[in-house]
Amino acid sequence: MMLLYEGKAKRVFRTETDGVYRIEYKDEVTAGNGEKHDFLEGKGRLNNLISADIFEYMASNGVDSHFVERISETEQLVRAVDIIPLEVVVRNYAAGSIVKRLGLESHQPLDPPLVEFFYKNDDLGDPILTDDHVLMLGLATTEEIRALKAAALKINSVLSRMMAEMSLSLIDFKIEFGKDQDGNIVLADEISPDTCRIVDMETKENFDKDVYRNSTGSLLDTYTAFYNKMEAIK
Amino acid sequence: MMLLYEGKAKRVFRTETDGVYRIEYKDEVTAGNGEKHDFLEGKGRLNNLISADIFEYMASNGVDSHFVERISETEQLVRAVDIIPLEVVVRNYAAGSIVKRLGLESHQPLDPPLVEFFYKNDDLGDPILTDDHVLMLGLATTEEIRALKAAALKINSVLSRMMAEMSLSLIDFKIEFGKDQDGNIVLADEISPDTCRIVDMETKENFDKDVYRNSTGSLLDTYTAFYNKMEAIK
Ligand SMILES: Nc1ncnc2c1ncn2[C@@H]1O[C@H](COP(=O)(O)OP(=O)(O)OP(=O)(O)O)[C@@H](O)[C@H]1O
Ligand SMILES: Nc1ncnc2c1ncn2[C@@H]1O[C@H](COP(=O)(O)OP(=O)(O)OP(=O)(O)O)[C@@H](O)[C@H]1O
Ligand SMILES: [Mg+2]
Ligand SMILES: [Mg+2]
Repeated sequence: MMLLYEGKAKRVFRTETDGVYRIEYKDEVTAGNGEKHDFLEGKGRLNNLISADIFEYMASNGVDSHFVERISETEQLVRAVDIIPLEVVVRNYAAGSIVKRLGLESHQPLDPPLVEFFYKNDDLGDPILTDDHVLMLGLATTEEIRALKAAALKINSVLSRMMAEMSLSLIDFKIEFGKDQDGNIVLADEISPDTCRIVDMETKENFDKDVYRNSTGSLLDTYTAFYNKMEAIK
Repeated sequence: MMLLYEGKAKRVFRTETDGVYRIEYKDEVTAGNGEKHDFLEGKGRLNNLISADIFEYMASNGVDSHFVERISETEQLVRAVDIIPLEVVVRNYAAGSIVKRLGLESHQPLDPPLVEFFYKNDDLGDPILTDDHVLMLGLATTEEIRALKAAALKINSVLSRMMAEMSLSLIDFKIEFGKDQDGNIVLADEISPDTCRIVDMETKENFDKDVYRNSTGSLLDTYTAFYNKMEAIK
């Protein structure tokens, strides 16, 4: 079955079924644009399990995604989409790049939540884009921009609620959208501790890739603890 | 008469008339965030003459600005405003930072013209802002953002027409807006070869600060030639 794309965290394969891809989650972690890079056995399994469960939670809360079904510990089937080359970031609290970029206080609440678009373009270092840039580059129409922002905010509501059930707080996250064969915009890629910033409401402990970025703890232990919390609210 | 503010290119003084400031244009040039820095005798005079004439051209084409009158070779009276800390950039063709930032072709046409907001904040290095950032930082309301963009595009039309009369092409420019005592948004600061990119339609020769930035010619000769072209169409 043909490998279509190998990224830093996943492999995408064509399947026998037209319009369906198989995504294999890899045992690799990177941070700081590839500055840090490690193999961590079991990481792919955890992200696949978590991402599948989150997509299922999304579906049961009215958010459509590319997710079809999980077929093994490290693989899931998804709908084939044309990825819109935007990293859509939603922020409930200031953290990471925006703190430095705009001189915000770390963890200051952003109310209403802030939606940002970054151009998925490694050569350019994923620059931030305004709506007018998105139009100029032909990445989405005005109507699609509106739809992307509305979808991002809806996903934020659902995901924030899920985290709150786990006594966790959703700081920010990054999602990708794609267009299916009928031109519908659907949530794609993954939602996992690799793509979210999540902290314990009480202890302020991180349950996300920041433990790896900042070398403050074991990524596998952290993701396992997160997965167990998810199982506990099922 | 009290000095209120001394910038890199101008000094702003209070006057005896409430609501009126005096701006003195200085013989200083800087580029690359202060990396290059020079005193050029006569530069202040040229920018004051050019900026005054452009504001008058604006007024006669329905664009209101802070400009009151030119009172000497190096000074003009302006309405006192609270500067909105945004550098509003309008681009008709790609040049400068956006070429690298978004991987555009140098001088590729941007149609419709692109309006960008940068946060006037030296400590942060004047970061680019989306509309949602502007709202979040409380720099302008949704209605004001709309008004700023509309004013910027109107100024672009008027300025482009003026340049065309001089057989020049307006590549891009940066403007600032302020709020007067009644809360009206008015064009402020300066419009000059310091704040515009202007090229000869035929020879592609620059008539702006790029000759200084890139050390490709004499700034004083270039600004003098530009001023003479302006005088010729009066
Ligand atoms: N349903 C889908 N259909 C097609 N492509 C998808 C789908 N879901 C995700 N992808 C793409 O598959 C790739 C997943 O790989 P991975 O996350 O490892 O990429 P990456 O190394 O992060 O690089 P990128 O910068 O492209 O995201 C990404 O390019 C992602 O956009
Ligand atoms: N009508 C006005 N009322 C009040 N302030 C004004 C007015 N017009 C311009 N200014 C401000 O006066 C200063 C002009 O100085 P100058 O252009 O030398 O500043 P600068 O060194 O470029 O620094 P800045 O980053 O503040 O623009 C700027 O801060 C500008 O915003
Ligand atoms: Mg990815
Ligand atoms: Mg200035």
